[in-house]
Amino acid sequence: MEIGGILMDNRPIGVFDSGIGGLTVLKEIMEQLPGEDIIYFGDTARIPYGTRSRETVIKYSFQCIKFLLSKDIKAIVVACNTASAIALQEATKAFDIPIIGVIEPGANASVLATRNNKIGVIGTSGTINSEAYQTKIRQLNKSSEVIGIPCPLFVQIVEEGWADTDVAKLAAEKYLMELKEHNVDTLVLGCTHYPILRYTLSKVMGEDVTLVNPAFETAKAVKDILKEKDLLRNDVNRKPSYQFYVSDDPEKFRRIGGNILRKEIRNIEKVDIENL
Amino acid sequence: MEIGGILMDNRPIGVFDSGIGGLTVLKEIMEQLPGEDIIYFGDTARIPYGTRSRETVIKYSFQCIKFLLSKDIKAIVVACNTASAIALQEATKAFDIPIIGVIEPGANASVLATRNNKIGVIGTSGTINSEAYQTKIRQLNKSSEVIGIPCPLFVQIVEEGWADTDVAKLAAEKYLMELKEHNVDTLVLGCTHYPILRYTLSKVMGEDVTLVNPAFETAKAVKDILKEKDLLRNDVNRKPSYQFYVSDDPEKFRRIGGNILRKEIRNIEKVDIENL
Repeated sequence: MEIGGILMDNRPIGVFDSGIGGLTVLKEIMEQLPGEDIIYFGDTARIPYGTRSRETVIKYSFQCIKFLLSKDIKAIVVACNTASAIALQEATKAFDIPIIGVIEPGANASVLATRNNKIGVIGTSGTINSEAYQTKIRQLNKSSEVIGIPCPLFVQIVEEGWADTDVAKLAAEKYLMELKEHNVDTLVLGCTHYPILRYTLSKVMGEDVTLVNPAFETAKAVKDILKEKDLLRNDVNRKPSYQFYVSDDPEKFRRIGGNILRKEIRNIEKVDIENL
Repeated sequence: MEIGGILMDNRPIGVFDSGIGGLTVLKEIMEQLPGEDIIYFGDTARIPYGTRSRETVIKYSFQCIKFLLSKDIKAIVVACNTASAIALQEATKAFDIPIIGVIEPGANASVLATRNNKIGVIGTSGTINSEAYQTKIRQLNKSSEVIGIPCPLFVQIVEEGWADTDVAKLAAEKYLMELKEHNVDTLVLGCTHYPILRYTLSKVMGEDVTLVNPAFETAKAVKDILKEKDLLRNDVNRKPSYQFYVSDDPEKFRRIGGNILRKEIRNIEKVDIENL
């Protein structure tokens, strides 16, 4: 659409995640792009992606993308770290729409933040074993030493509401020991749930270690890309519309998701993602 | 088949679970019915069932049953507590084959074990919220007081290999506090992974509390039912065949599963359970 010679696009942004965690990314987009409409799909019936095979993650991600495309969106944000790590490259080849993942923005920020070139990355087994963050960081800074540690317990700890308990602290001490021994000065929180653990992680790593939140960095990247492609809305002072879809029972999503977003989630619909 | 007037059935037993945990049930069946062939299906692409809606668990369970029926089996064991709790009743109505779940054998054993009629049950959110164990135990012993506590972190702790660590102990102390306050003398381990935590659970609950392992009780029930229906093998002194199917990458199953069974797992095939 062209208004007064300036291209604009008032269609919504599509965001998907393997479940609830991607709401930390959505929250940052809502704050940094307050006028944009957003459609969020959480694949709650098939969470977690982090333990699944490459082939399965790509299949699921393509199904999520096809669902969002059916809603006439202008760009897609892959909020899930596992899906970004494993399926983003294939997806950008297969679909003709801007698709933004969380890996590159997170990797960029970590390279800017480090002073001793020692960077830690934590995430699900799928994200860490894919080496996506590690490879990207080494591409951006050839002299960097990157250590990836899978922390599969953290998601459940957050969903249990135990982010600030001794269980979280003990688990963090076990998982992060190797990163502390290697004296990393920057830690990428490579899973959407992890920003909720940031106080515990900061306590365990020490105040001198910079925690990078890819959710925040991704929202910045989305804004830059929409601007560059003239896809921002032209009427940003309106109340935006947020529509949510999930593949399993909406109630748990409404409850835990509401805590993450810190506002009530309305407009949730269940979709049968396997048989669309 | 009839041999010398005695009915026999040399077809395999089918066992399914949401993933790897059901191997604790398989192990007990292998020990108590050493001559029987077994076909195991682990729905590793869609694990965990414990956090999913009733409707989804029933749909998935029926798909698992249909897959096993295609292998010409003589009975089905639902090794998954969540599927037993939610889908067993519907399944026994829908399919004309003996189907044995883990709930009833576990409930029976707890009622026999308790002395003060105070019984605790731990499991996934799905199992506990279904009230399946609690209802069954109250049916069997009207004067019993049953307290169910969901312990979602335990599965991940076991899969992480942390069953005997401080993280497991701290998590157990948090989860089991209410059961200790209520002075239960019997604790049902209502999730297939939990027997692997039994030393930690016993340490936290105290030696006077009897831990009931439904996997062991279920294998006993399978033996009784096959005997009663004349479905036992007639040639038990042969080397049995074990065939495994999974819905996601077989490698993780081979590795973690091998630790649970304490023997190497061969004969694993991947099946596309969603599109059979």
